[in-house]
Amino acid sequence: MQQTFKEIEKQKKNSNDLFSPRTAFAHRFKTIREYTETICTPLKTEDFVIQSMPDVSPAKWHLAHTSWFFETFVLKNFDKSYREFNPVFNYLFNSYYVQVGPRFTRSERGLLSRPTVEDVYQYRSYVNFHFLNLLEDASLDDFQKMIPIIELGLNHEQQHQELILTDIKHVFSVNPLKPVYLKRERGKFKANNLEWIKFDEGIYFIGHQGDDFAFDNEGPKHREFVEPFQISSRLITNGEFLEFIDHGGYDRPELWLSDGYAALLREGWKSPLYWIIDKDQKKHEIFTLSGLEELNLDEPVCHISFYEADAFARWKDCRLLTETEWEVAASGSPLKGNFLEDSFYHPITCHEQNGLQIEQLFGDLWEWTRSSYSPYPGYKTPPGAIGEYNGKFMSGQMVLRGGSCVTPRSHIRATYRNFFAPPSRWQFTGIRLAKDGK
Amino acid sequence: MQQTFKEIEKQKKNSNDLFSPRTAFAHRFKTIREYTETICTPLKTEDFVIQSMPDVSPAKWHLAHTSWFFETFVLKNFDKSYREFNPVFNYLFNSYYVQVGPRFTRSERGLLSRPTVEDVYQYRSYVNFHFLNLLEDASLDDFQKMIPIIELGLNHEQQHQELILTDIKHVFSVNPLKPVYLKRERGKFKANNLEWIKFDEGIYFIGHQGDDFAFDNEGPKHREFVEPFQISSRLITNGEFLEFIDHGGYDRPELWLSDGYAALLREGWKSPLYWIIDKDQKKHEIFTLSGLEELNLDEPVCHISFYEADAFARWKDCRLLTETEWEVAASGSPLKGNFLEDSFYHPITCHEQNGLQIEQLFGDLWEWTRSSYSPYPGYKTPPGAIGEYNGKFMSGQMVLRGGSCVTPRSHIRATYRNFFAPPSRWQFTGIRLAKDGK
Amino acid sequence: MQQTFKEIEKQKKNSNDLFSPRTAFAHRFKTIREYTETICTPLKTEDFVIQSMPDVSPAKWHLAHTSWFFETFVLKNFDKSYREFNPVFNYLFNSYYVQVGPRFTRSERGLLSRPTVEDVYQYRSYVNFHFLNLLEDASLDDFQKMIPIIELGLNHEQQHQELILTDIKHVFSVNPLKPVYLKRERGKFKANNLEWIKFDEGIYFIGHQGDDFAFDNEGPKHREFVEPFQISSRLITNGEFLEFIDHGGYDRPELWLSDGYAALLREGWKSPLYWIIDKDQKKHEIFTLSGLEELNLDEPVCHISFYEADAFARWKDCRLLTETEWEVAASGSPLKGNFLEDSFYHPITCHEQNGLQIEQLFGDLWEWTRSSYSPYPGYKTPPGAIGEYNGKFMSGQMVLRGGSCVTPRSHIRATYRNFFAPPSRWQFTGIRLAKDGK
Amino acid sequence: MQQTFKEIEKQKKNSNDLFSPRTAFAHRFKTIREYTETICTPLKTEDFVIQSMPDVSPAKWHLAHTSWFFETFVLKNFDKSYREFNPVFNYLFNSYYVQVGPRFTRSERGLLSRPTVEDVYQYRSYVNFHFLNLLEDASLDDFQKMIPIIELGLNHEQQHQELILTDIKHVFSVNPLKPVYLKRERGKFKANNLEWIKFDEGIYFIGHQGDDFAFDNEGPKHREFVEPFQISSRLITNGEFLEFIDHGGYDRPELWLSDGYAALLREGWKSPLYWIIDKDQKKHEIFTLSGLEELNLDEPVCHISFYEADAFARWKDCRLLTETEWEVAASGSPLKGNFLEDSFYHPITCHEQNGLQIEQLFGDLWEWTRSSYSPYPGYKTPPGAIGEYNGKFMSGQMVLRGGSCVTPRSHIRATYRNFFAPPSRWQFTGIRLAKDGK
Repeated sequence: MQQTFKEIEKQKKNSNDLFSPRTAFAHRFKTIREYTETICTPLKTEDFVIQSMPDVSPAKWHLAHTSWFFETFVLKNFDKSYREFNPVFNYLFNSYYVQVGPRFTRSERGLLSRPTVEDVYQYRSYVNFHFLNLLEDASLDDFQKMIPIIELGLNHEQQHQELILTDIKHVFSVNPLKPVYLKRERGKFKANNLEWIKFDEGIYFIGHQGDDFAFDNEGPKHREFVEPFQISSRLITNGEFLEFIDHGGYDRPELWLSDGYAALLREGWKSPLYWIIDKDQKKHEIFTLSGLEELNLDEPVCHISFYEADAFARWKDCRLLTETEWEVAASGSPLKGNFLEDSFYHPITCHEQNGLQIEQLFGDLWEWTRSSYSPYPGYKTPPGAIGEYNGKFMSGQMVLRGGSCVTPRSHIRATYRNFFAPPSRWQFTGIRLAKDGK
Repeated sequence: MQQTFKEIEKQKKNSNDLFSPRTAFAHRFKTIREYTETICTPLKTEDFVIQSMPDVSPAKWHLAHTSWFFETFVLKNFDKSYREFNPVFNYLFNSYYVQVGPRFTRSERGLLSRPTVEDVYQYRSYVNFHFLNLLEDASLDDFQKMIPIIELGLNHEQQHQELILTDIKHVFSVNPLKPVYLKRERGKFKANNLEWIKFDEGIYFIGHQGDDFAFDNEGPKHREFVEPFQISSRLITNGEFLEFIDHGGYDRPELWLSDGYAALLREGWKSPLYWIIDKDQKKHEIFTLSGLEELNLDEPVCHISFYEADAFARWKDCRLLTETEWEVAASGSPLKGNFLEDSFYHPITCHEQNGLQIEQLFGDLWEWTRSSYSPYPGYKTPPGAIGEYNGKFMSGQMVLRGGSCVTPRSHIRATYRNFFAPPSRWQFTGIRLAKDGK
Repeated sequence: MQQTFKEIEKQKKNSNDLFSPRTAFAHRFKTIREYTETICTPLKTEDFVIQSMPDVSPAKWHLAHTSWFFETFVLKNFDKSYREFNPVFNYLFNSYYVQVGPRFTRSERGLLSRPTVEDVYQYRSYVNFHFLNLLEDASLDDFQKMIPIIELGLNHEQQHQELILTDIKHVFSVNPLKPVYLKRERGKFKANNLEWIKFDEGIYFIGHQGDDFAFDNEGPKHREFVEPFQISSRLITNGEFLEFIDHGGYDRPELWLSDGYAALLREGWKSPLYWIIDKDQKKHEIFTLSGLEELNLDEPVCHISFYEADAFARWKDCRLLTETEWEVAASGSPLKGNFLEDSFYHPITCHEQNGLQIEQLFGDLWEWTRSSYSPYPGYKTPPGAIGEYNGKFMSGQMVLRGGSCVTPRSHIRATYRNFFAPPSRWQFTGIRLAKDGK
Repeated sequence: MQQTFKEIEKQKKNSNDLFSPRTAFAHRFKTIREYTETICTPLKTEDFVIQSMPDVSPAKWHLAHTSWFFETFVLKNFDKSYREFNPVFNYLFNSYYVQVGPRFTRSERGLLSRPTVEDVYQYRSYVNFHFLNLLEDASLDDFQKMIPIIELGLNHEQQHQELILTDIKHVFSVNPLKPVYLKRERGKFKANNLEWIKFDEGIYFIGHQGDDFAFDNEGPKHREFVEPFQISSRLITNGEFLEFIDHGGYDRPELWLSDGYAALLREGWKSPLYWIIDKDQKKHEIFTLSGLEELNLDEPVCHISFYEADAFARWKDCRLLTETEWEVAASGSPLKGNFLEDSFYHPITCHEQNGLQIEQLFGDLWEWTRSSYSPYPGYKTPPGAIGEYNGKFMSGQMVLRGGSCVTPRSHIRATYRNFFAPPSRWQFTGIRLAKDGK
């Protein structure tokens, strides 16, 4: 039977010292692990099973894979008495760690009825129990070695929290019954005017340095020269993007990168993902985690590919930011925004809510940059399987910055680099514009 | 809430005359509809959702589609007060009836988490309730018009009973956890010797005629001239097929049809589907609805394509039967065999169990014939959507005869024509041999 | 240097006895081999190289492959002193004879610039020279063994004569410059009325028997029972087929086999191959070996798939013939018709030209039958590589009968069975209708 | 009939002033246009027709397309009396200029036997004649407007000179007869030692500025900050790459980018393109434009993808250069190297031939950088169809620098940016290594 954290707690010897580092870690572990399951509360058993396209994983898989991470990189390495929950799970729930052994084909994750959802929750419970005991019992030396892996594991779990929502949205969207995840009201506002904020040329420090957690791809900290540039004060809205459509944006190859227009033709794109265009141009709809809604023209446009963001920018006689420019702009900005914890599960209209000069840098939507995802000067892939986390994906992808409305707030920072392939649309992605010169 | 047949019964006005035709129909309807659900008893909720390849449908889909059939062709036509359970279901659960409207893409049936399994059982219950009421209340004229459609619907439901088992076997087979449907013992016997039974040349009547139910493709009854031939007294065994493999059968293109060898290379066939070949040639395994088992050499070889059956026959210097020859041989034979109701869910060793001259003609395994599926002389496709049942599939498929261990006994007869594409292997298919001459 | 037959002749010892069987064979060999080259006279060097789709082979390949046949099956087996022209050619010009060794991928025949056209003509000349010498010098025993292979080789060469024209038509058709093979006038006539000819039920002898050449698939001669039937007196015309189009024939799935409608959607068919439909319905065009022409409504419709033929027949409330019915109808008919030697390279209007009760049975167009290509009772694949000629293709194809306007007249007979896959359209194929009953 | 430049010359009015700008342009035009045809001299008619894979174009197409460029962007715009050679050619020989109209599918260029090679040479001759007349007769205003387009057209023609050789190499390579383009001796030398050359951190100016020709993508000139780095003194050799193979380089996914290893598995890579690995590890071979040769271990390794270059660098504990670093290193270097005019058509061993500190920066092989192809700060796509030349390809490609042994010497410079997709191998590509730090 599956155990709640409370039940695990009771069985444990002594967990009373709230201020020890171990207790702090245990607390964060429990909070984050529980939150993953909270996100799944509105789902029916059947919802956990579906893979609606190769990029999507079933919710069940996310729940198991994040547990596999702790089992594989913590329990198996540091708990000599640990016995695997099920040896086949190492095969089923390894995502892409070649050095950990063979793995089940990614595109076939939706073919698995077993383990059942209940089995997977038991697996989580089993891993939690052993992890928390290990955290208490490990030698000081082991505990210190475990710290960076636990940190990575918790950040990894947060990434999958976001993916559970991104993926279930796609799963629901292909279903003619158009299921609702959670019905939430976002309010109706008029979007702020779009302003231009200027930045001077100069050498800037870019990337992460310091003791707090960051992914390996955020460093090393290094210098970059930046020519003068300007950026828009908020994200582009549905209304602004609809103008692009109404001006034939999807039928004008001269606005598109060559690969982008090929993708448009191949996929039959005529609007952002999840839009349902009304032929009479009167009442367009949009599918959200709150179900089908009328398209709100003041809200930020989302679920667009890099190619669409780039074409829109060209149509506006602008361009997208480089990731360096984004980081320059964001490095002084407070971490305010619409995140997962705000429970909108959708970007909201920019209406002075935070009172910043540049709004929506954090939260709401991941912002496509024009920068390919590549290593910073001096970057080295860490050794071992953990080194497969980031470095090996540094080709064919574009960098996105700032987090989204389904990113946990504590997960994001100014140096954070997300990355997806340019035609990807199922992530919560949006557009911020830039211009050259002063 | 879902209702049992008992509960529906109570709500009905008068169902006490056991000998009326309506009561008889109601009884058959309830028996067959309930049996479909009985077959699903061993499944977990998650098992109902999976489509492991395009030919497979989720169990949930089978449950709903068979109800859609009665809803569409009976209730909507004859019950004026009937209101659809859910209008989207007509789109979701139409299989291929073009004249009934557009339908959900077949290969994407496994992308649907909703309706849930519980929703589908409620749909069945709702259709059952209205159907049984209609059966009682319909005018005599309507009742008589309904009879052939109900007959078709019940035979259709039986076909899907077989498919539920065929499909769940495939779903389980792709899962590294190798789930068990139901563990059943089949006994261990030595297979009978293979004998040859001779038939004379002559004009034979082929096809169905008469008042009892048969599908349209089984008629009209007509004459065919048959040259003298011989057929084997039982199905080919795993042991006999293993010899073919051990003699390089899968590496000798000269034994294969050209399309067959191309399929072998494309699919990487090295043995029948569900075999797990032991490299040391000692302990081969086979996946069954009872789970993984040691390969029993005396049991009939199953889950082979037409191409494999044909290549095996050529290797034996024999050939497969034509469907005419099969019907000539079967027309005098009693309907004895290993069927769904025997609950083995697997073919069993031929060991004089029925004491027939030709064993295993019915049940155990569908026998591939060398006959392409085509219309009999004088065949006309029936008008309307019901006419899409058989005629439009008369190209690119081979005829199979005799039913299998997952076919309901009351569903089969000597004139029954099943058909699948030559590379299909997920059905319960086997081999009987033939030779020319006396 | 390439040699003409005259030059080869001079070098030979004694070829003066016109009435010896060897001389007769030498004469037929020279006549047929020369005719192949005559067919290629209108082609430019570049035209010999192109493979416009996987089914098409470059003319150069046909010229070489037919020579490879004589080299491989005659010269290498019977001429001990023979040295291969080029050892790589056995790899390049083997079509599908697995038992002769590996071969170049069929779909990549158009990737070969070398051997050049001139090289290939030298290869032909070299094989001709050695073949004719062998024919003279072989022992009587060898000569008698060679006879069936030579016969097969010459019939094989005639099949490739037809394919050269079929294939170059496709090559030219995909070229926006719409090249002309040879401009020929066919005259303008009104098509005969379509009549129905009746045949009685009975046992008929089907298939070839006797000393004159026939392919293995035409035998053995055997009996078939045929129910009464009627057939149309001529082929269906473009005008009649245009009615089918104008009545929405390509948009009505209920008229089509399921596989056929899927092919229509996949390939985007809206008319026969090589038609250019005028949107204003005024002046449709057709691409022929004489170039682009106005569509002649009285000429037979050609370049249609089996599926289109079948759908048209269903629309007319008729059906296609079985191959047995066709042979019954044709067995008493004279071998009159529009063949390759008539040099129209296109079917011609049926206007009493031959004064037969049933016109166009031979020549003009191959007639799709509703019969799948399968072995006759008692058929055995011949041993050795030659056995790969026919038997291994007996799945997935439909039988066509009667030859076409690009078939050599001496190549065809009433028992001749041609076969193509049901979606094939690049062959010269047409429609004859049948009905059940008297 | 096709005309030589001499014949065109005679027909022209007065072309005697050698020192006028028009005469200078005419001279360069004739020189470059003639050189294109010189490159084709060793080809047989059939060789001009083949497209061995979608990236390759037939030589005939290159000859025509480069003429189409002058016809479309010069003659049609500036010569009012000009009549198209053939209106269909605008459709056939437009490569990707959407704004010039629809174009023939790229992957089907090898399906065209017509226009013949002779037709294409006449087209060249016709365009040359009219171009040279226009150059003489144009008004001063027109002449000045034409200059940048002519410059672009001549540089464009030089790019296709390189492509003709790159493409014919691939065409020949897939042919089992392994044709030779031109047999050339390259000498046998021992490769120089590999040294490391250091560069300091700092702000560098990058990109082209000035009056001499450069492509739009080479500008604007701008500043970049570069951290300290080191680069290898020459290209990597076959011997060094063979060590990578012998140490299991192609079987160790941890050395590869994720996309790279997927490409390796998909394509079955086991060595660079054109290598023929000897299983006994004794005598490896390589296919070159001189035909099949023994692999020379001292020559630079070529025809490797970006992924292979990157994996090799990682195996060496190094990395590839950024394009900025390459330009910093090359900006002071003389333009010495092994180019098209040296007629080796293959990279040669580095053996002090140029006496430079860093050898082989120019010529021999295009060097893969780790930089994605993207716009420089301030870059704007030029207006009109000419603007489609570079900007629209700025996604999904990596930058290569330095030119190769089939690049015309006058075509290259330090700011030149070439770009190909990371899995491309048919270009003359090689590896130079870099390291971080001083």
